[in-house]
Amino acid sequence: MKIGLVGGGLAGSLLAVYMARKGHEVHVFERRPDMRGGQYEGGRSINLALSMRGLKALEKVGLDVPVLEQAIPMHGRMMHDLAGNLTYQPYGKDGQAINSVSRGGLNIQLIQLADAYPNIHLYFRHRCTHADLDTASATFETEDGSSMEFQGDYLIGTDGAYSAVRDAFQRSNRFNYSQSYIDHGYKELEIVPGPGGSFPMEKHCLHIWPRAAYMLIALPNPDGSFTCTLFFPWEGNPSFTSLDSDAKIKAFMEEQFSDAVGLMPNYLHDFNTNPTGSLVTVRSYPWVRGKAALLGDAAHAIVPFYGQGMNCAFEDCRILDECMERHPGNMAAALDEYQVLRKTNADAVADLALQNFVEMRDRVGDAGFLHRKHVEHDLAELYPDRFRSQYELVSFSNEPYRYAWDQGVRNGALLDYLIENKLEDQLGDRALLTPLFDRFL
Amino acid sequence: MKIGLVGGGLAGSLLAVYMARKGHEVHVFERRPDMRGGQYEGGRSINLALSMRGLKALEKVGLDVPVLEQAIPMHGRMMHDLAGNLTYQPYGKDGQAINSVSRGGLNIQLIQLADAYPNIHLYFRHRCTHADLDTASATFETEDGSSMEFQGDYLIGTDGAYSAVRDAFQRSNRFNYSQSYIDHGYKELEIVPGPGGSFPMEKHCLHIWPRAAYMLIALPNPDGSFTCTLFFPWEGNPSFTSLDSDAKIKAFMEEQFSDAVGLMPNYLHDFNTNPTGSLVTVRSYPWVRGKAALLGDAAHAIVPFYGQGMNCAFEDCRILDECMERHPGNMAAALDEYQVLRKTNADAVADLALQNFVEMRDRVGDAGFLHRKHVEHDLAELYPDRFRSQYELVSFSNEPYRYAWDQGVRNGALLDYLIENKLEDQLGDRALLTPLFDRFL
Repeated sequence: MKIGLVGGGLAGSLLAVYMARKGHEVHVFERRPDMRGGQYEGGRSINLALSMRGLKALEKVGLDVPVLEQAIPMHGRMMHDLAGNLTYQPYGKDGQAINSVSRGGLNIQLIQLADAYPNIHLYFRHRCTHADLDTASATFETEDGSSMEFQGDYLIGTDGAYSAVRDAFQRSNRFNYSQSYIDHGYKELEIVPGPGGSFPMEKHCLHIWPRAAYMLIALPNPDGSFTCTLFFPWEGNPSFTSLDSDAKIKAFMEEQFSDAVGLMPNYLHDFNTNPTGSLVTVRSYPWVRGKAALLGDAAHAIVPFYGQGMNCAFEDCRILDECMERHPGNMAAALDEYQVLRKTNADAVADLALQNFVEMRDRVGDAGFLHRKHVEHDLAELYPDRFRSQYELVSFSNEPYRYAWDQGVRNGALLDYLIENKLEDQLGDRALLTPLFDRFL
Repeated sequence: MKIGLVGGGLAGSLLAVYMARKGHEVHVFERRPDMRGGQYEGGRSINLALSMRGLKALEKVGLDVPVLEQAIPMHGRMMHDLAGNLTYQPYGKDGQAINSVSRGGLNIQLIQLADAYPNIHLYFRHRCTHADLDTASATFETEDGSSMEFQGDYLIGTDGAYSAVRDAFQRSNRFNYSQSYIDHGYKELEIVPGPGGSFPMEKHCLHIWPRAAYMLIALPNPDGSFTCTLFFPWEGNPSFTSLDSDAKIKAFMEEQFSDAVGLMPNYLHDFNTNPTGSLVTVRSYPWVRGKAALLGDAAHAIVPFYGQGMNCAFEDCRILDECMERHPGNMAAALDEYQVLRKTNADAVADLALQNFVEMRDRVGDAGFLHRKHVEHDLAELYPDRFRSQYELVSFSNEPYRYAWDQGVRNGALLDYLIENKLEDQLGDRALLTPLFDRFL
């Protein structure tokens, strides 16, 4: 079958490989230039947290080991308070970690793999200007301004949160769609490497400066630097709007992130010149119409606070691959099963990501919350057969996101009960806990 | 000030009059032909329920009396069960009624009024193909295929649920938007007049055939006919999809709406040839950006089940007019106050309309629900100083929709208490009721 993929980013390039392995003829159209040409700035670009769902999808095409070789495991969160005091909270059990990877580096690895398949055809600097869902055809504007027509058996939009293919869905009848922006934007800053490429902060952590109404985070890069992201209100005081002079930016940064600014020699320049990004949640349905489909951010963009956007898109690819295996030769049936299986989980991870923003920027600075996390961690260590935290289910399992959401609600009721009844010292008592697991979980 | 209004439907033509009365130069661009040219089919078109909010907005421009002269008051709902038995439920107190009006007739009255203002310029068959929010300019395709440019001080989109102006908002950054379709579509059918233009059913009612998963409704027209609308699932059994032959349509209609089909001689033809409409809720924000704004369905389309779409759009006009009065000469301030005042109420009426669909198609056929409505009605009659039903607040008051939603929740708790404690026979006991009003409302 001849498949057109609009978008050769992370989701598109992985999906191309999955499709090629099924024997399809795959044409991938990417708006941007070929990243392998060096047009991509390596370590400076945003990095991502790769966790189990993403790894499982990469494993199926043999990319998990090569990608992990370039990644830095992060075993927990390191919270920085106003005075620079540190508090550590592990993400999971011993050995469990999420992985800081370079978005650009990973995309290049995926493009290289895709390019090795003779039945994958890559087109760069091809911008989709029109898509027809019923005929699986599309028009692209190429580098020299000329236009190119594609005509296939299926057309799949893997072109991200501002998908051109989804625009065609939106012009069709009865397409449910929402785009919802949070009140915060983001700005990338950089902590530079220490002497000789050493890490100026604890390497194997995701660092957070939680400040209730906003936060700074930092993820490690292999060269000893950290990519920092400030999540900050667009309006109000303080906000991107209110910090309208170098003096105000400096005073704010030094007061709020005193231990970080000393490691960010270029923060004022970066603050003034790096773009401010917006953060959107996109929900849509159906994802399949006529001979066309949506996958990844094009179908369900989420905010980045659970580190699941890429993992969810990769899981989309893996689940669609399983649907194709169950319906060999019947792409319509495979796509329909894919959308039914994935929709509720995409909605769940969107909600998880919004919820985690409040947790990261506000609650992780709170002693009561950290106590609760300790109790949760102890339960997970003591009763791996009975108790899994929501974080573990999201990041260290392949259970459906919807299950993780629901289980998080049930876990919360159990934790409330244990803390209200001051049972924290008796967590090792299996005879006490078993009926509580039965009751709450 | 030079104002461009994109859309000369109900909201656009009323807003034009409001703007003209403030001394502005108003240009109204309508995609469709001039309805006054007879291109509009009179009594066959859908009719609408005009209630207090709409009347108040019309009153300010002197149109309330002329419009009511063409309208038919409906004092309550008449429910038809499977056997054709009738149950009546009044909408409010004696004398309170919503009014069945012809959409086309009302629009013509508004256009005639607008045309009488020398500072209103009407353009028909002008389709908006581009709008620029920052410069208040727009491009229109005219009847002969040529294009026309408009350049004003402000541009306002009153062009309905599928607004072209809103498309320009959607291409701007951080615009929150959702379109959500319900699983039901609608089909118009017609009950023909009785002998000599008499009414073959009770004239002063909105008739409902509630069938749980779907419903038929009918509103009276001055010529003795009723415009019927079948709200029915798109998919499933039964649905528009499953009724795929004349025999199936006939069997279904005769079984479910036995007393109505006898009055609808052309229903099979109408069912097969009338289009099936879809029902969407549109939410968006902001409604003001640069030199442009959205009003009415363009900003907040709702499903028709509370009969509030037009009333809400007319109330938008009235509130914006009040904002212009509070900020003379400062359109930016007026528009900003308008959007802040209206957004929460537009969200509330969207939820009210969705909630009322369940009530109309399902609950009005239930004895427990009707008992509850009786209790509510008695409270409203006995204690006009203390108790107003949600229906009364929505249809017979100008209180904010948000207040009506909240008060409906509080009323519900009081009704639950009265019925659970079997106090229905003591509603006249003010000494008993007063502390309950204090407690619940």
